[in-house]
Amino acid sequence: MIQDLSIDRPILFLDEHRCKRNIETMIRRANSAGAELRPHMKTHQSITVARWFRERGVQAATVSSASMAHYFAKDGWKDITIAFPYYRAMTESLKHLEDVCKIRLFINSVDDLDYLEKKLIHPFRFYIEIDPGYGRSGISYKNRSLINRLARYKSSSGQALFHGFYIHEGRTYQARGVNEIEKRITPALSILKNLKSDFPDSVISIGDTPSCSVSKQLGVLDEMTPGNFVFYDYMQYQIGSCSLDDVALFAKLPIAQASNSADRTILNGGAAHLSKEYIRKPDIPTYGRIVRISADRIETVGNAHIRSLSQEHAIVEGLNNLPNAETHVWVCPIHSCLTANLFSEYKTLSGETINKRTLS
Amino acid sequence: MIQDLSIDRPILFLDEHRCKRNIETMIRRANSAGAELRPHMKTHQSITVARWFRERGVQAATVSSASMAHYFAKDGWKDITIAFPYYRAMTESLKHLEDVCKIRLFINSVDDLDYLEKKLIHPFRFYIEIDPGYGRSGISYKNRSLINRLARYKSSSGQALFHGFYIHEGRTYQARGVNEIEKRITPALSILKNLKSDFPDSVISIGDTPSCSVSKQLGVLDEMTPGNFVFYDYMQYQIGSCSLDDVALFAKLPIAQASNSADRTILNGGAAHLSKEYIRKPDIPTYGRIVRISADRIETVGNAHIRSLSQEHAIVEGLNNLPNAETHVWVCPIHSCLTANLFSEYKTLSGETINKRTLS
Repeated sequence: MIQDLSIDRPILFLDEHRCKRNIETMIRRANSAGAELRPHMKTHQSITVARWFRERGVQAATVSSASMAHYFAKDGWKDITIAFPYYRAMTESLKHLEDVCKIRLFINSVDDLDYLEKKLIHPFRFYIEIDPGYGRSGISYKNRSLINRLARYKSSSGQALFHGFYIHEGRTYQARGVNEIEKRITPALSILKNLKSDFPDSVISIGDTPSCSVSKQLGVLDEMTPGNFVFYDYMQYQIGSCSLDDVALFAKLPIAQASNSADRTILNGGAAHLSKEYIRKPDIPTYGRIVRISADRIETVGNAHIRSLSQEHAIVEGLNNLPNAETHVWVCPIHSCLTANLFSEYKTLSGETINKRTLS
Repeated sequence: MIQDLSIDRPILFLDEHRCKRNIETMIRRANSAGAELRPHMKTHQSITVARWFRERGVQAATVSSASMAHYFAKDGWKDITIAFPYYRAMTESLKHLEDVCKIRLFINSVDDLDYLEKKLIHPFRFYIEIDPGYGRSGISYKNRSLINRLARYKSSSGQALFHGFYIHEGRTYQARGVNEIEKRITPALSILKNLKSDFPDSVISIGDTPSCSVSKQLGVLDEMTPGNFVFYDYMQYQIGSCSLDDVALFAKLPIAQASNSADRTILNGGAAHLSKEYIRKPDIPTYGRIVRISADRIETVGNAHIRSLSQEHAIVEGLNNLPNAETHVWVCPIHSCLTANLFSEYKTLSGETINKRTLS
C-alpha cells in the first residue's frame, strides 16, 4: 500500500520490495560469477538495509570512512573494508575499530604499512587500489614498481597481509547501454587479470555499479563491492545498469506553486534535498525525473524533469497539465547516494520509518 | 589561535571573527539604507550564529521552511518570515508556530489567504513574491491583475495583513564585478519602486547577497533579507560581493593521497561534504579553491583548485609542491549555504564547537 497523505516537507521514500529484489539479484550475480559480494554501504548508510543483506548470507561490508565502519560494526558487522585511501590521521579511529571487527584497508605506500604495523595490534588485510586511468585515486596501473613493492611487502610482525587488487572504473558511469559498459570495463578487467597472473594468491575486485549490474565478464573476479545498485537511480537507468522499475528510492516533494502559463511548477525540494547532481539528456540538464509510482510499476510522467534547482526550490518543466488537487510529485533522483546522504531517515511506501546514519 | 592538530575527517570551520565582522557590516549597510535587516538564517542554520545578530539588535529572522522557523523560534525568535511559497500542507506546522512567534508568509493566491484565515488563529503578514523574470518562484511582475488582487485582499477576520513586495533577483549571482551587479539589480528595484508607488503603505524588500553587499541603490528599500553574506564563499568572491578576506567558512580536508607526477592530490572530502556546486573560472570548473589561512589573512594557494569530486574524494590540481609533512588543506567552498548544510556542526578556529541544525 502506498501512503497517500499530503506531506509538509520533502520526504525520501525507500521501496522496500524493490530494494530487497535488487539485493537478491546482486547476490545471485555474485554467486554465478563465483565472487564474494562485499556490498558498499555508503549508498544507504542504514543498519536496517545492511541487515537485509545479512539475512541473505552476506557477511562482509565495504564503507568509505572509519566513522562509517564504526556505525556498521556497532550493529555486528565483523569484516569491513574501508574503501578509501588510508591516511595516517585515520589511525586512532582504526585502533578502536580493530578491537571489534576485522578491517581491510586501501594502502598506497610501504611507509604506511610500516607505520600501521607499529600502531595496530591485530592483523589487517590490505588492497592495492589500481587506477586504470580514470584518475580518481589509487596507484596507476603503469607504476608496476610501486605495485610490486606493496604486493611483496614483507611484514615484520605478520600483521599486514596483502589481500588483492581493487579497481573502481568510474568511466562506466559515462556509458550508455550494456555494450558500452562492457567496452569500458574490459581494460580494467585485463589489468586485474594480468596482476592476478603475477600474484596468483591475490584476489581481484571491482565495485562500479554498471559493470556489477550487467557485465558478462565478471567470472574473472574474486570479489565485488557495488553500492549504488541497492537503490539505483535515474543516472543508472540512463546508463543501462537497470530498468526504471528497479529504482527503489524516490523523493516525494510538495508542490509549492502550481504550473503556470510558462509551464513551470515549483516544488519544495532543492539542492539541499536532491544534491546538485545532474545529467544531460541529451543536451538539457535534468536534476530529477518526475515519475508516477504504483505497487507494480514506475512510470515517467510525460517529459517532466527538474530543470533547475536552488537550495530549496526545484523548478519542473513538463507538468502543465497537473490536476489542481495534486499536492506533491514523485521524483526519481539523479544520484541516489548523494540524495540519501541529504536525509536523516527513509520512509517506506507503507509509512514506516527506516533509520539511517546522518551527517557525521 | 588556529588549531593545528591533524584531523581524521573533513571538518567545517567557521571563522568567528570574520563572521561577526560580516554581520556588523551588513547591519551598518542596512542602517545607512534605512532598511530593516531581517537576515536569512538558512545559510548558517545555527542558533549560536543567530544570537550574534540578536546581540547587535536584530530582532527578526528569515527562514526557508516551517521546520527551520520552529528551530529558531525555540531559541526565542519572535518574528519570522518563511521566505518560501506557502502551500497548504505547511498549515499544520504553522498552527504550532503562530502560538510562539509572529509569522510572515509568501502568498501566491487569494484562495490560500481565504484558507489560512480559517485555519490560523493569530494575525499574520504576507508578502507578494514578485518574479522579475528570473524564473524561480513568485508571481510575474507582468501579472498585475493577480498582484493587485492580492495586495488589495480584504480580510474578513482581520488576520491576513498585506505587508509588502519581495524580489529575489537570482541573476546577480551571474554577475562579475560591482557594475554588473548594479546593472542586474536595477530592473528589480524599478519594479519594486513602481509597486510601492501604487501601494504606498507596502514595504519593499530584496535578499540577494550580491546586491545587499555592494549596491549603492539600496536607499529605496524598506527591508533586506540576505543570508549568504554571513559566511560568503568563493562564488561571492568571484561575483565581487566580498573580498577573499571576508570569507568566514572553510572546509579542512585531510590529504588522502599526496601529489603525484600527474599533479593530482586526493583529499578526503567530496560531494557529500562540499556539495557538487561549481563555478567555471573562466572555462574549467572549480569545486573549491585551496587557500592558506592565518589570523590576519586568507591567501589562495598557487592555482590549486578542486577539479573534480566524487562522493568522498576531491581531486586537486595545482598542489604538486606540497610539503610531505602536510596532512590537510583548507578549502574555500564554492557555495557556503550548501556546504554548511552538509555538516552537523562547525568548529571555530580556536577549536570550539558551534551547534547547528542538522538534516530535517
